Amino acid sequence: MRGREVHLVAYPERGVSADDFRVVEVEVAAPGPNQVLVRNLWTSVDPGLRLRLAADAPPGYFPPFPLNQAMDGIVTVGEVVESNAAGFAPGDTVWHAAGWREYSVVEAGVPALNGLATLRVLDVSKVPPQAYVGPLGGMGLTAYMGLFEVAGLKQGDVVWVSAAAGAVGSLVAQFAKLNGNRVIGSAGSPEKVAFLLDELGLDAAFDYKERPVAEGLAAAAPEGIDVYFDSVGGEHLEAALGALRHGGRAALCGAISQYEADGPPRGPANLFQATSNELTLRGYRGSNFSDRIGEMQERVGAWLVAGDLVYRETVSEGLESTPLALVSMLAGETIGKTIVHLP
Amino acid sequence: MRGREVHLVAYPERGVSADDFRVVEVEVAAPGPNQVLVRNLWTSVDPGLRLRLAADAPPGYFPPFPLNQAMDGIVTVGEVVESNAAGFAPGDTVWHAAGWREYSVVEAGVPALNGLATLRVLDVSKVPPQAYVGPLGGMGLTAYMGLFEVAGLKQGDVVWVSAAAGAVGSLVAQFAKLNGNRVIGSAGSPEKVAFLLDELGLDAAFDYKERPVAEGLAAAAPEGIDVYFDSVGGEHLEAALGALRHGGRAALCGAISQYEADGPPRGPANLFQATSNELTLRGYRGSNFSDRIGEMQERVGAWLVAGDLVYRETVSEGLESTPLALVSMLAGETIGKTIVHLP
Repeated sequence: MRGREVHLVAYPERGVSADDFRVVEVEVAAPGPNQVLVRNLWTSVDPGLRLRLAADAPPGYFPPFPLNQAMDGIVTVGEVVESNAAGFAPGDTVWHAAGWREYSVVEAGVPALNGLATLRVLDVSKVPPQAYVGPLGGMGLTAYMGLFEVAGLKQGDVVWVSAAAGAVGSLVAQFAKLNGNRVIGSAGSPEKVAFLLDELGLDAAFDYKERPVAEGLAAAAPEGIDVYFDSVGGEHLEAALGALRHGGRAALCGAISQYEADGPPRGPANLFQATSNELTLRGYRGSNFSDRIGEMQERVGAWLVAGDLVYRETVSEGLESTPLALVSMLAGETIGKTIVHLP
Repeated sequence: MRGREVHLVAYPERGVSADDFRVVEVEVAAPGPNQVLVRNLWTSVDPGLRLRLAADAPPGYFPPFPLNQAMDGIVTVGEVVESNAAGFAPGDTVWHAAGWREYSVVEAGVPALNGLATLRVLDVSKVPPQAYVGPLGGMGLTAYMGLFEVAGLKQGDVVWVSAAAGAVGSLVAQFAKLNGNRVIGSAGSPEKVAFLLDELGLDAAFDYKERPVAEGLAAAAPEGIDVYFDSVGGEHLEAALGALRHGGRAALCGAISQYEADGPPRGPANLFQATSNELTLRGYRGSNFSDRIGEMQERVGAWLVAGDLVYRETVSEGLESTPLALVSMLAGETIGKTIVHLP
C-alpha cells in the first residue's frame, strides 16, 4: 500500500514557505511485531514546529527535523487499520507522534519524541477525535500546566494572555475565566479581538498591532497584572514586565514574535523589574508534564463535555495543505487550533 | 549637639561622582518620647543605593533619595547615647536604617524603610558590631534567601556566583560550598579571582574582563550549571541562560552592569532558553524576607563564630569618605563588603 507524507526539503533562510516542503508518496510498510498501522485523520500544526525547521534548534529543545524524511514528534489522531500489538484493534481511535503523513506504522510502548503522544487508544465516546490534537492533547496540557502549575494561578489574580486567540492562549484565557479570574487577552486583528470579547467572554482585549503593546495593556489593565502567559516574547514580554505587580509570575511557553525576527532576538530591556517587583519568570514545555495528562484530560474533558469551553479550529483539508497551514498560522492568520484533516 | 550627615545634592547624569554629595553639619535634635539618640559606628555602602540616586527609581523599588536631605534606608550600626524608649539603654549596640550620618535620632517600633533594620539591640557578645552591616544584616539575608529559598539550592547543583568577590556574592559562594555544592565564582580582576580560589576555596573562578563571560563560564563549568546567582545582569545573565541545564534556576538580586550603562539596559537575547530548558528566573530583594532574619542570623552566626566563613571588608574611615567608597565599589575596586567606619 502507498501513502503520502510531508518532508522538509530545506531549512528556511528567513520566513517559512510551502516550498520548503514536499509531499512524497511512499510505500507504507506492513506493521511488524508489536506494531499497528494507523490511517491518520487529524494532524497538528503547532508554532513550536518552527523551531525545528532549522539546522540548529535551541539547546535543550527538540532536535531539528531531518531533511527529506517523514517528520516525527507531531501529535496525530487516526484509526487503527491493522494491529499486531496487544490492546489495539482495527477501528480503535489512537494518537501517536508520527505526524504529517496519511498512514503511520507505530510501535506500541515506544515513548513518543514529545513524551506525550505515545501510541494510545483514545476515548471518543463524548468528544470528537480531533479534541485530542487540541484541548485534550498537547495544547490543553500546555495551557493547563502553564496556568495552574507554572504560573501558580490564585484567586484574585489579574491575568494577561498573549496570543489569546490561538490554540493554547484561547484555552488559558478560558481556564482562567472558569477559575473566576479577571482575564485580559491580546491578539493581532480586530476579528480576533471580537472573538476574545464576544465568544470567549474575556473581561478586556486589545489588538497589539493597533498601538504599542504596553499602551494597549495599560488601557486594559490600569491597575497592573499578576500573571502573564507568554507565547509571544519580545515587546509583549517587555510590556508584561512593566505591568506585573509585586510577586507577579510569567509562564513562558513560547516566543513566536522572535522565531522569524530579523537579527538576534530581543531580550526585555526592563528585566530589572523582576528584581524590583520580585517577579518569577518560568519557562516550560507542556510536553514535559506528560505524567499529568490524565489529570488534565479529566478536568478539561469535563469542561468540554459540559459545553463550558469554546473550542475554535482553523481546519485545512488534505495532507498537501499542511505546509501552507503552518505558514498561515505563523503569519497570525488563523484563529484557535490550526489543524489538518486527512480525508 | 552637632553632627555631620551626607546629602545627595544632584542626581548623577551618568556615573556617580563624589561631587554629587555634600557633607553637611547639622544640629542633632534631642531624642523625643520613644526615641533614642545613636552615635553611629558603621554605615553601609551597597550597590542597590545606586538605583535610588536617580529622579526615577525602577517601579516597585525603593524611592529615590530626596536631594539635600539626610539619606534614609541604609543599614547602620551604632551605640545608644541617650534613650527615651523602653528596651534601649545607653551603651547598647543597635542597628537602624538612618544611615550616612554621625548621629541618628530613631523612634523605636517604627519599621525601617527597607523593612530590615528597624531599631533593635544587637548581640555583639560573639561577633563584631559591623557583622550586622554584612553577613548578619542585609547582605547575609540577601545571600541566604537568594541561595536557599529563591534559587532552591539542592545537593548536587553546580552553582555559578557572579560578583563573587563582592559583599553578597562572597557569602553566596561560601554558603553553597558549606552546603557541599560545586561552586564557580566570577569577578573582575586577577586579585579578586585569587581571593575566590585561595581564600574562599571555590572550585573554579574566572575573570570576566579577560574574555567573553560565556567563554570563561564554559571553561569553568564545561558540563553547565544548575543555579546562577545574579548581581550583574547583562552579558553575565546571557551567559548563564546559555549554561543553565534543564530545570535550572537563576536568583536575580541586582544588575550592577546595567546601573550606569550607556543607553537602555540590555535584555538577554537568549531568553528563549528559559522555555527550551525549563528554567526559572526569580527576582527578589533580600529586605522582603525580613521575617526570616532570625533564622538567617542563627545559621550564619553559627558559621561565623565557628570560623567557617571568610569575611572580607573594604573599610573607609570617616563620614566624608562615604561617597567615594560608593564610587569605588561601583567601579569594582573593592573586595568583600564596602563599609564606612565612623571614628
